Amino acid sequence: MSGSEASRAVTRWLEAFSTALEARDIAGALALFGPEAYWRDFVAFTWNLTTMEGRDAITDMLERTLDRVSPSRWTADGKASEGDGVTQGWFTFETAVGRGKGQVRLKDGKAWTLFTTLQELKGYEEKAGFTRPNGTEHGAFKKRKSWLEKRQQEEAEFGYSVQPYCLIIGGGQGGIGLGARLKRIGVPTLIIDRHARAGDAWRKRYKSLCLHDPVWYDHLPYLPFPDHWPIYTPKDQMGDWLEAYTKLMELNYWASTRCRSASYDEGKREWSVVVEREGQPVTLRPRHLVLATGMSGVPNVPHYPGADMFRGKQHHSSLHSGGEGYEGKHCVVVGSNNSAHDIAADLWEYGAASVTMLQRSPTLVVKSETLAKFRSLYSEEAVRSGIDVDMADLMTASIPYALLPRFLKPVVEQIKKIDAEFYDGLRGAGFMLTFGEDESGIGMMYPRRGSGYYIDVGASQLIIEGEIGLKAGASIRRLTEDGVVLQDGSELPADLIVYATGYGSMNGWAAELISPAVAEKVGPCWGLGSDTAKDPGPWQGELRNMWKPTAQEALWFHGGNLAQSRHYSRYMALQLKARMEGIPTPVYGPVSNA
Amino acid sequence: MSGSEASRAVTRWLEAFSTALEARDIAGALALFGPEAYWRDFVAFTWNLTTMEGRDAITDMLERTLDRVSPSRWTADGKASEGDGVTQGWFTFETAVGRGKGQVRLKDGKAWTLFTTLQELKGYEEKAGFTRPNGTEHGAFKKRKSWLEKRQQEEAEFGYSVQPYCLIIGGGQGGIGLGARLKRIGVPTLIIDRHARAGDAWRKRYKSLCLHDPVWYDHLPYLPFPDHWPIYTPKDQMGDWLEAYTKLMELNYWASTRCRSASYDEGKREWSVVVEREGQPVTLRPRHLVLATGMSGVPNVPHYPGADMFRGKQHHSSLHSGGEGYEGKHCVVVGSNNSAHDIAADLWEYGAASVTMLQRSPTLVVKSETLAKFRSLYSEEAVRSGIDVDMADLMTASIPYALLPRFLKPVVEQIKKIDAEFYDGLRGAGFMLTFGEDESGIGMMYPRRGSGYYIDVGASQLIIEGEIGLKAGASIRRLTEDGVVLQDGSELPADLIVYATGYGSMNGWAAELISPAVAEKVGPCWGLGSDTAKDPGPWQGELRNMWKPTAQEALWFHGGNLAQSRHYSRYMALQLKARMEGIPTPVYGPVSNA
Repeated sequence: MSGSEASRAVTRWLEAFSTALEARDIAGALALFGPEAYWRDFVAFTWNLTTMEGRDAITDMLERTLDRVSPSRWTADGKASEGDGVTQGWFTFETAVGRGKGQVRLKDGKAWTLFTTLQELKGYEEKAGFTRPNGTEHGAFKKRKSWLEKRQQEEAEFGYSVQPYCLIIGGGQGGIGLGARLKRIGVPTLIIDRHARAGDAWRKRYKSLCLHDPVWYDHLPYLPFPDHWPIYTPKDQMGDWLEAYTKLMELNYWASTRCRSASYDEGKREWSVVVEREGQPVTLRPRHLVLATGMSGVPNVPHYPGADMFRGKQHHSSLHSGGEGYEGKHCVVVGSNNSAHDIAADLWEYGAASVTMLQRSPTLVVKSETLAKFRSLYSEEAVRSGIDVDMADLMTASIPYALLPRFLKPVVEQIKKIDAEFYDGLRGAGFMLTFGEDESGIGMMYPRRGSGYYIDVGASQLIIEGEIGLKAGASIRRLTEDGVVLQDGSELPADLIVYATGYGSMNGWAAELISPAVAEKVGPCWGLGSDTAKDPGPWQGELRNMWKPTAQEALWFHGGNLAQSRHYSRYMALQLKARMEGIPTPVYGPVSNA
Repeated sequence: MSGSEASRAVTRWLEAFSTALEARDIAGALALFGPEAYWRDFVAFTWNLTTMEGRDAITDMLERTLDRVSPSRWTADGKASEGDGVTQGWFTFETAVGRGKGQVRLKDGKAWTLFTTLQELKGYEEKAGFTRPNGTEHGAFKKRKSWLEKRQQEEAEFGYSVQPYCLIIGGGQGGIGLGARLKRIGVPTLIIDRHARAGDAWRKRYKSLCLHDPVWYDHLPYLPFPDHWPIYTPKDQMGDWLEAYTKLMELNYWASTRCRSASYDEGKREWSVVVEREGQPVTLRPRHLVLATGMSGVPNVPHYPGADMFRGKQHHSSLHSGGEGYEGKHCVVVGSNNSAHDIAADLWEYGAASVTMLQRSPTLVVKSETLAKFRSLYSEEAVRSGIDVDMADLMTASIPYALLPRFLKPVVEQIKKIDAEFYDGLRGAGFMLTFGEDESGIGMMYPRRGSGYYIDVGASQLIIEGEIGLKAGASIRRLTEDGVVLQDGSELPADLIVYATGYGSMNGWAAELISPAVAEKVGPCWGLGSDTAKDPGPWQGELRNMWKPTAQEALWFHGGNLAQSRHYSRYMALQLKARMEGIPTPVYGPVSNA
């Protein structure tokens, strides 16, 4: 099929679909879907992030939403393409309240997957480009306030005499990027963060840390990194970028501020949040509360017998600042995911006497360079061919999670071949490898668990060469004064133990800051319910509780890696703006994914 | 002529031109120019910014440069266009040492104007896009230094044990933008600035100041303002942008540093520059010295009899921080250019009892909004049609100064018509108006004088309404204890006198920091030698001494508005890089424009 034939097929489909929907002819619309059918919707139809899997689910959704959503103006956008019997094309559309963008994949002329997203609310579009502010009002006005005076006034009043509509707890890339989106559509937002400066969450990590994802994947909204920016951003440079970004985007950001408690008044429909700002208590009363407290939740710190008698240093990986000071020391790293590998390699680079990794369970390892080859949507080539980061995000999201393993397994097969020697080396060193229970690789491991993998930037070679000692399948039985005793009875000397043992679910923060009852009502965050290790069912089709309404009114979770924070913050911002403006937002589909 | 015919005409011309140049057939090349012919070259052929005006000048230049430059690969770039009998098209080409971009305008198939620019040096291309750095080196290395450690080491050593190749005095937008360009091509550069923070030169100006040019005109290199940025940037926001930019671009920037003296050692071919950094003297030994001390030179402060007995406040406009504190006070503003108008309006807005402007000579006034309409290359429309700021800069520079009045006079005619009522109002208030001696408007006034105009953002209406008093043709005879006496003997009460009396030539800085002898050797900066008021001849064809070699080896001047600083910093950076790498840079054409 030629490109123009593909475009014609998509246009034909859109016209028929549009006609059926405008006639409220749900049966007619369903006739345009194939026997296997998925409809992923971000906010446009459902005010939720939901995938309707199968014809019945699509029918039910349309029955409940079609009249209200009143979609129209389905228009092909750009050229369609065809490959492997699948024709795909992008389109724009409108709803009663907004404008959207989407994609359809056709098989034999019928929709296999449909993807619809809300991109902006009518009447509340971002002020940018032609609609950007003037900056100054030309003319002469008595008692005019300058930009600086207005900014200073806002800083003095905001959070005190003027309440934010939205409070974001956590000012890492997630909170900052969401704050920027909310700023652009005029949602008064305050971000609080416990560190002294924006970006410190990165600065305070171990010294050798660089982003494991390449720059094309890591842009924040609106202000992309300049084109000389390194592929793998060093942590302190990332910290500086976030700090500058916060300032340039004019975000209201309280550093050195900790959240002490939060409770929701169902009657007033507002939160009461007690924070400590530079030591002073302040009570905030936002209408919405967003927990952006890190992609992961509260650190998991194991407690072993004898921990109190151990004379060396022991701490969770989140508190480990680097290998400096451990020259000539015996070091044990518990865990085998990203942080564990990075920390072990860093200790080796600093000349530790020994570094031993305790691998508790099989781990997925993929070389960073190899992974980058298969992430062609986020690459210099993509940029040159006109795929900007917003388009790459949409393209990535266009595949429903239920179908993703089918797309990913062939990639895993290729990676295994490309790096066969590397994997043989790891196995030879005793490393317990996995590529996921269904061999779908890191692309599924990440949404299922948010952990369980190492994107190799060098540590694996040290393991292969025995420079980093490995105890596979090992765990600690107890600590002694100067070492650890493993379950098999063997002993390791230790001056340092780093617990790279991961984090709990993000709703641990809800338990800590709000209440265990609310955390339980909301249920765990992240995970698809894939019924694989550490991702128990039932199947959800989307990530639990992330970027969408939860079972607790006005409580939201925002997080993920830089790419997810960037993309999904768009939908978070639209959901919050709609509520602020009193646009009805009836939520369709699962809310609590407990 | 259709677009494709235009493209064919340009391609044909380029092929013939290329053939002649490759055969070193200068007569043949000249046969491709029309009777009226201009060739503007930025660095590519001349290692200078020079316009060859007329066939003889072109012949002479080719005779002296062609063998060495050895141009080749002339290739049409994009679509050509035709209008009013002129066909114009862009092209790329190469020289022995670099790659260039240019434009030709054809009349009757012969070149009317040719524009050639060097864009990069072969082997020394900017590291960006595909060639950006990795950020981290994957693998494991003992004693690896992190980005932060390397940066801290550089900051500790640079200017002390490690000398900059280039020292830029003045860290405003000019110095910062040039610093960013030099950083990208690896020229070790130090920027010094007397203020405590980058951006303070903006922050410390009068409170109401916003850029008079719109945002599309004001981008710095590499990191454009995001698309919500206001059209007219408020000064403090501009300060914050510059400060963040300096940090994100990893520039070596010494704040709170004053240059005390500089001298050039012709034997060693290096400068000895004594600076005071936070009170401590440091001697720097750069190979090149760039004065980026502001678009203008040393402030002109008039000294009137009685100045010492005046009991109010009096200061130059550069030291005026705003109208605050002058409520109910009588204020006199000497001068009638941008700053004078802004300051007068600001005093009025603060409720001064009276504000009187002393207009000493006719002034060009143009409304900001009207001007913006005629600056379509720098607009949202241009952005949407694919004209990025680099292309807009080239398009702007493609017209030789000698021809510019011809392009500008019709614009002035239109502006006069659009704003006829406005200009009548100003005349009615007694304001002495000019549109330039040859009615070529601000577009020529600016390169000729760098002053003499007001881009109206509101003050003119106050003058029309008499809210700001005007004394046209007036100047001060002497000051009294509480006012000023004008030349006509009339008196004005005054609590404040602001001298918005402009600045001397930039080479005043050379006199002050290096020596009067060097300043005299170099001659004045700026101005075209148009033989109009304040721009004495002889005709230069280019701005004197700006962004190009001067009569003092290794001394350079950089400045201009944001757009000029952005565009010309590219050529400054290439000239400095070539010298650093030992690429021969024989300069053709006038060096000292004294």
